[in-house]
Amino acid sequence: MSLRVTVWNEFVHERNNEFVRSIYPDGIHEQIAGHLRAQGLEVRTATLDRPDHGLTPEVLDATDVLMWWGHAAHDKVRDDIVDRVQQRVLHGMGLVVLHSGHFSKIFKRLMGTSCGLTWREAAERERLWVVSPNHPITQGCGRFIEIPNAEMYGEFFDIPDPDELLFVSWFEGGEVFRSGAVWHRGRGRVFYFRPGHETFPIFHHPQVLQVLANGVRWCAFAGNDQMVSIGQAPNQKEPLEELSPKDYVAGALRHPPASVC
Amino acid sequence: MSLRVTVWNEFVHERNNEFVRSIYPDGIHEQIAGHLRAQGLEVRTATLDRPDHGLTPEVLDATDVLMWWGHAAHDKVRDDIVDRVQQRVLHGMGLVVLHSGHFSKIFKRLMGTSCGLTWREAAERERLWVVSPNHPITQGCGRFIEIPNAEMYGEFFDIPDPDELLFVSWFEGGEVFRSGAVWHRGRGRVFYFRPGHETFPIFHHPQVLQVLANGVRWCAFAGNDQMVSIGQAPNQKEPLEELSPKDYVAGALRHPPASVC
Amino acid sequence: MSLRVTVWNEFVHERNNEFVRSIYPDGIHEQIAGHLRAQGLEVRTATLDRPDHGLTPEVLDATDVLMWWGHAAHDKVRDDIVDRVQQRVLHGMGLVVLHSGHFSKIFKRLMGTSCGLTWREAAERERLWVVSPNHPITQGCGRFIEIPNAEMYGEFFDIPDPDELLFVSWFEGGEVFRSGAVWHRGRGRVFYFRPGHETFPIFHHPQVLQVLANGVRWCAFAGNDQMVSIGQAPNQKEPLEELSPKDYVAGALRHPPASVC
Amino acid sequence: MSLRVTVWNEFVHERNNEFVRSIYPDGIHEQIAGHLRAQGLEVRTATLDRPDHGLTPEVLDATDVLMWWGHAAHDKVRDDIVDRVQQRVLHGMGLVVLHSGHFSKIFKRLMGTSCGLTWREAAERERLWVVSPNHPITQGCGRFIEIPNAEMYGEFFDIPDPDELLFVSWFEGGEVFRSGAVWHRGRGRVFYFRPGHETFPIFHHPQVLQVLANGVRWCAFAGNDQMVSIGQAPNQKEPLEELSPKDYVAGALRHPPASVC
Repeated sequence: MSLRVTVWNEFVHERNNEFVRSIYPDGIHEQIAGHLRAQGLEVRTATLDRPDHGLTPEVLDATDVLMWWGHAAHDKVRDDIVDRVQQRVLHGMGLVVLHSGHFSKIFKRLMGTSCGLTWREAAERERLWVVSPNHPITQGCGRFIEIPNAEMYGEFFDIPDPDELLFVSWFEGGEVFRSGAVWHRGRGRVFYFRPGHETFPIFHHPQVLQVLANGVRWCAFAGNDQMVSIGQAPNQKEPLEELSPKDYVAGALRHPPASVC
Repeated sequence: MSLRVTVWNEFVHERNNEFVRSIYPDGIHEQIAGHLRAQGLEVRTATLDRPDHGLTPEVLDATDVLMWWGHAAHDKVRDDIVDRVQQRVLHGMGLVVLHSGHFSKIFKRLMGTSCGLTWREAAERERLWVVSPNHPITQGCGRFIEIPNAEMYGEFFDIPDPDELLFVSWFEGGEVFRSGAVWHRGRGRVFYFRPGHETFPIFHHPQVLQVLANGVRWCAFAGNDQMVSIGQAPNQKEPLEELSPKDYVAGALRHPPASVC
Repeated sequence: MSLRVTVWNEFVHERNNEFVRSIYPDGIHEQIAGHLRAQGLEVRTATLDRPDHGLTPEVLDATDVLMWWGHAAHDKVRDDIVDRVQQRVLHGMGLVVLHSGHFSKIFKRLMGTSCGLTWREAAERERLWVVSPNHPITQGCGRFIEIPNAEMYGEFFDIPDPDELLFVSWFEGGEVFRSGAVWHRGRGRVFYFRPGHETFPIFHHPQVLQVLANGVRWCAFAGNDQMVSIGQAPNQKEPLEELSPKDYVAGALRHPPASVC
Repeated sequence: MSLRVTVWNEFVHERNNEFVRSIYPDGIHEQIAGHLRAQGLEVRTATLDRPDHGLTPEVLDATDVLMWWGHAAHDKVRDDIVDRVQQRVLHGMGLVVLHSGHFSKIFKRLMGTSCGLTWREAAERERLWVVSPNHPITQGCGRFIEIPNAEMYGEFFDIPDPDELLFVSWFEGGEVFRSGAVWHRGRGRVFYFRPGHETFPIFHHPQVLQVLANGVRWCAFAGNDQMVSIGQAPNQKEPLEELSPKDYVAGALRHPPASVC
């Protein structure tokens, strides 16, 4: 079965702003979805204005990785949908958060911090330097990715220490930013990737798209489905066993092997 | 000025259960507070039944470290108070979470995970092994702390990877548990410490009390108060500068020093 | 091309000790190699007594993952071979270190610490608990692996903080141990896995063998081959560029796009 | 007793190069030592040309924190002295490594990697951004430190993932660098700090000196001196105990308390 991706977009700017629409005529979600489909992934999209924002239990159950783009309408996302997405992540769904999604409810929920940062809109040159060359997500990027015109994001970026830091951005105006990072949450994987303003054609950049595809594949790993305790606190009912005879003769086995060992 | 601690307790079991009261006549909070006061700290207590659960803005503003014990009444803690405590942590207040506080709203909020685990009440022997001998919190514990009768907590413990893992527990019945761990959240520090059931006199154990005092001191560090961006996303208004003349003669300075360098 | 593994064994106990030979007639290396071959991997073995300990440049260049078992003869391994193996790891070869290999020269070299621990030979029961259910190496283990008779290894284990902690062992005699952990070193991946004494049939245990196969597959990832700077400090010769015009008109691009963006 | 620091310098450039001598007339070591003494620390210096490079067992035993500056003569440092310093770090001595010390034997020994990087000498502007505002070492730096003329160091910097990343540098020419980072090794703490070329007056920069003093204080913490196993593998001789009676009556204690609990 091929990997199933849902690309979520609040889909506001593309409707309200002609300039944005000229870059992303069908919305940022369709631009990204098209690229992922071309790589053989099974991709659907979802937007804020659909019932349950397009994130019904059925859709989430059929989603291996959810990608999230939001900016102007973070506060319009319903809290119960955020709860639902968080539960799915903890049970193994991957989550890729894009650019201004740093301030989305779901990202703040999973991080536990404010996720604040500084920013400046000045069409600056950006370079995303690879600091983890041994991570699957950074493959195909060479030593850095260059984006000629970008909105700047600067430190301090209020996130928990990443489980792995993948990219650090350099900006023309003097700032740096931890631009690509991953975290485990429960059985799920989370990838934050900075590039992607609505007024620049950054989601047409081949290496940015390459990293998104890498990120989706890496986040799809759902892990051990026997970890039943996630989200619960089950009483461990096994009685204590008699574990410990006192003496030991070298070479002897204390516990006769049930099978091979 | 001495370090200011607020010990919070839902204070339910000690009122409802005579056996618990026999161990903690004035409540778990007063037992711990008494020990911390004896170490020269400035300690107040707060409980669920007070206005704002005793955690008014004034109290929190005058608190360097908050200690949290809850078990039976997690869901009775008001969400707006949880918001308030989280904000204070992100701005530098330390938080020490005890035992069954793993399922408190504030701990789950800061972790982003379910914080689930397994458990068994069988008065088992527990040993908390030090795995970070170079951390201030583990000082005075030797190689391990032994608790003769404890409730068991077992893995998988659904927490984000700790920034530093301090203690790992061994239980008589066959389980292990990551019993002491720390995380940074914004400018604040969080310490989770497992020991402490209401039906065992664990908060009378000298080494457990020692670790709590160590934990309070470590969490009190609030860090850099110039990090204004926490919780916000301020526009970085400085214009781009002309940074880069092209030529360089060895030994020359590109930027004439303003002062010493 | 299938994944190429070299299993290294000092191959001393199996020759000197009849009891060990009865468990591993062809040596521990052949026991493990046979299992990996059955999974479709391309496996060769190497031992201390061969020229260059069987680790010639040709062998290492044709090795994606090296597995290391040593115990009695750590100090007989030549330093220049250790240098050679370390270089290959930094350039992308995976390394799986088994049991008493914790004290091998190559593991200590890559860790930078003493890698000391405590131990006891008493055929104790061991349980390896999964603490990272979302890691590929822990798949197929359920919640824990049980080994009925094992040598104990105890904390403090003097290793750098793992990049990811995968397993924590419980021992009948009261100890715990960080039994499975991974680290990145350069472009290479390192996995330490505790089980495996020479006098117990632990490398016949199906789940232990499963973890070894998982570990080999995970460590085989060599990462970005464009990271030329590993092991060197090349002068970055590009001249500084004129990067920063001063003015910005909203919507304008500062840097005319070379291609799509 | 005040904190005891030894500042080590190969002391080559200052003797061979008049321009360097004009900036550091008594050597880089004396420049730094003078600053630390002014803060009340007990500081001695040591150089390559002294017996044992000035790092006799007596000196190291009386050193809480060692600071290391080397550049042109890394290969002249004797291996047995590197062994000695490493042992002291593992037993609790702090180590602060400066700038080109990234290629010193002792730093590579403790990291296990090549510690390679890229560089360019073009008197570029550098900004060291604070990414860990809650760490003692970053206090007093505001949001970033600016150095008007610096040698550039660029990624990929081949180090193990830091236990905590403190500073990320921005360079005028387009690079970034992980400029301040800490690691635990055994009971010792290691801090790498990038600034400090011999041809720029960077060790006169007040904030750089502030960070060095912060770093020395943080690295001085030696931790738990009961962790006897560091560097050894002692047999754990305690016999197995009878740990596990089968039945449990609620409220009962399985193990009658020896003292308070």
